[in-house]
Amino acid sequence: MDARMENHDGATLLEQAAQLDAADPLARYRGLFIGTDTDLSYLDGNSLGRPLKRTPRDISTFIEEGWGGRLIRGWDEEWLDLPQTIGDQLGRAVLGAAEGQTVIADSTTVVLYKLIRAALATVADPARTEIVLDTDNFPTDRYLVEGIAREEGLTLRWIEADPASGVTVEQVRDATGPATAVVLLSHVAYRSGFLADLPGITEVAHSAGALVVWDLCHSAGSVELDLDGAGVDFAAGCTYKYLNGGPGSPAFAYVNRRHLPGLQQPIWGWMGRKDAFEMAAGYEPAPGIRSFLSGTPAIFGMLAMRGTLDLIEEAGMAAIREKSLKLTAYAVQLYEAWLEPAGVELASPRDPELRGSHITLDHPAFRNVTAELWEQDVIPDFRAPHGIRVGLSPLSTSFAELFRGMAAIREQLRR
Amino acid sequence: MDARMENHDGATLLEQAAQLDAADPLARYRGLFIGTDTDLSYLDGNSLGRPLKRTPRDISTFIEEGWGGRLIRGWDEEWLDLPQTIGDQLGRAVLGAAEGQTVIADSTTVVLYKLIRAALATVADPARTEIVLDTDNFPTDRYLVEGIAREEGLTLRWIEADPASGVTVEQVRDATGPATAVVLLSHVAYRSGFLADLPGITEVAHSAGALVVWDLCHSAGSVELDLDGAGVDFAAGCTYKYLNGGPGSPAFAYVNRRHLPGLQQPIWGWMGRKDAFEMAAGYEPAPGIRSFLSGTPAIFGMLAMRGTLDLIEEAGMAAIREKSLKLTAYAVQLYEAWLEPAGVELASPRDPELRGSHITLDHPAFRNVTAELWEQDVIPDFRAPHGIRVGLSPLSTSFAELFRGMAAIREQLRR
Repeated sequence: MDARMENHDGATLLEQAAQLDAADPLARYRGLFIGTDTDLSYLDGNSLGRPLKRTPRDISTFIEEGWGGRLIRGWDEEWLDLPQTIGDQLGRAVLGAAEGQTVIADSTTVVLYKLIRAALATVADPARTEIVLDTDNFPTDRYLVEGIAREEGLTLRWIEADPASGVTVEQVRDATGPATAVVLLSHVAYRSGFLADLPGITEVAHSAGALVVWDLCHSAGSVELDLDGAGVDFAAGCTYKYLNGGPGSPAFAYVNRRHLPGLQQPIWGWMGRKDAFEMAAGYEPAPGIRSFLSGTPAIFGMLAMRGTLDLIEEAGMAAIREKSLKLTAYAVQLYEAWLEPAGVELASPRDPELRGSHITLDHPAFRNVTAELWEQDVIPDFRAPHGIRVGLSPLSTSFAELFRGMAAIREQLRR
Repeated sequence: MDARMENHDGATLLEQAAQLDAADPLARYRGLFIGTDTDLSYLDGNSLGRPLKRTPRDISTFIEEGWGGRLIRGWDEEWLDLPQTIGDQLGRAVLGAAEGQTVIADSTTVVLYKLIRAALATVADPARTEIVLDTDNFPTDRYLVEGIAREEGLTLRWIEADPASGVTVEQVRDATGPATAVVLLSHVAYRSGFLADLPGITEVAHSAGALVVWDLCHSAGSVELDLDGAGVDFAAGCTYKYLNGGPGSPAFAYVNRRHLPGLQQPIWGWMGRKDAFEMAAGYEPAPGIRSFLSGTPAIFGMLAMRGTLDLIEEAGMAAIREKSLKLTAYAVQLYEAWLEPAGVELASPRDPELRGSHITLDHPAFRNVTAELWEQDVIPDFRAPHGIRVGLSPLSTSFAELFRGMAAIREQLRR
């Protein structure tokens, strides 16, 4: 490949990658992840984050000593509390949430179902009959709300999102009113990477008397969050992207403490009951956020994310966001130098401040290009109809890795 | 301890344990489990099964090579199919279910919620307004159905189960009628270990025009099942007991194929949609049992159970049940020799054919006794108000281990 192309400053783009890596205050974290000492270019940490090198050992030790050694005693000694202790750590490290408002549970889809049903049943004004969401929201969010609307006899009000950016404060202002019960939006759009104005939209929705549920799947661990500060009502997200919990690790739920008293989610289970192990007659919800639990927590799936949460607490979300901005800016710079001239479109905002930690590039050939790239250990994501999504995990992605990946996209497109 | 007590045949009970172990055709499986070469007595595999010795290595390898090496490619290459491929293996090895009717998903609580809601919405006659269950059903089943009854405006009809045995065919006949929509029962009762007459009850419920949902948590992997043969409508269960999936491993759902066309579960998510990765507008359920999925499957949590399913296929459920019967019979024999004279009550059926793979012993001191036993690495389970549950996993429990545990209960009770 020809990497000797000049950039605006006169340095080559490859040298720039080296300079950016050398100046990166988070550079030392990359070596903690499996596979970062190979030539593989991983540009999909926004879909499935890499495992930490410590994770196989942590989990083996857990199986030998925790599960295998403590056996059923482990539940009383530690495991029963993990949904809340890890939830609180996530709240503190990532969400801007004081303790007692976050739990790890279920999958994002199930958590969103429980949150929205709980919001409708016990917080929203029953006279309000509309759920507002956008046409480019993540598929599971859209499908889920169609199902809820059907079972609850509600109307969906769709905001037409610009697929290359996302939902604006003005659009939410126009779409909400006295009929709006709940607004469900993604903080970072799964295709464009557009970073919605969470505080602004939350405020506008509240002005209309509506509740807001934020899907944080693509922002948790990559973008600074202050859920308490913004007065967010409810939020959910997954832990297998920037939190490196592993394929299908459980989701998280955030319920603002002002909504906790009397909140009732629909899937009543033993883990959400007061004094679960008394196994008594009649469901009485446990106090606080614990009532959000239903079945037995997935302990395996909670262990891997702890390593990343520790790193995030150490590095700080401000530094992580700063590196993310540099990564997406460099990706756009490579795009402008190599791919824009080849007819590729940037389906993401040009303004770095309006982006999360990924960008999407569109070209009719990209479905096939992605398949070829995967064979070469260059791994971005494909998103229908013809987008390559370049995801950048601030703790594990290097600028050199990004350079290699973008160069491979250019080469593959030429063929 | 004094183990020189004579049994009915004149041999000592301890010698009998050695004879039973020597004659056990499944004895070689025990050594495959972690911790079985220690003096620890584990009598709670019916609550959390032991890990296999291969599990730490299997999971480490998966983290290094699967998650860490294949990264997002793993979904397309294998993981997306695992809920169905492992589900089919479970169906074949354990449930008596032909392929295409079983999936691994969520937790038992969430799976039961989806099954019952789906049954009510798309199979049951909407004019039927009652759900039948029993007062000694597992707590999560009871709580869950209270919640569903409340949201759907249904009535619960409670069968008063004898806590030392369980629900009979006659009781179900009396409780069901033209108003019954769904009957929800446990195949093996979580306290008494009573083995319900699954074919008989299913038939009686069907005669009344009702649907049956079986909770198989305490029977899957310990008792022979023929769900297809009995014409069961729906079933669910967990995989962390006799299937050794690990703490909080996901549940399974069985839907008889006659109910699959048109079946609609309430939590519409991307993994249950036709062509999930097209991410298109509008929910259309995937064909068959796949539509039962909602969110991203917990891959981690599915890996450990595969090792046990392989062993079950090799050993066969008939041999497993046969050993289970011998284990509970020997436990009752030790109880009669040692504990009955000390005032302990057997809160389980005397007839081995009416038992699953655990028995419950009642004594007012047992809450404290259990705590003391745990300190000594003798680990039965405590179930309120004052039961010690002695659970026997046919693949991993030896008769000598059971002898040690029962002797320790006797000793502790004496103090």
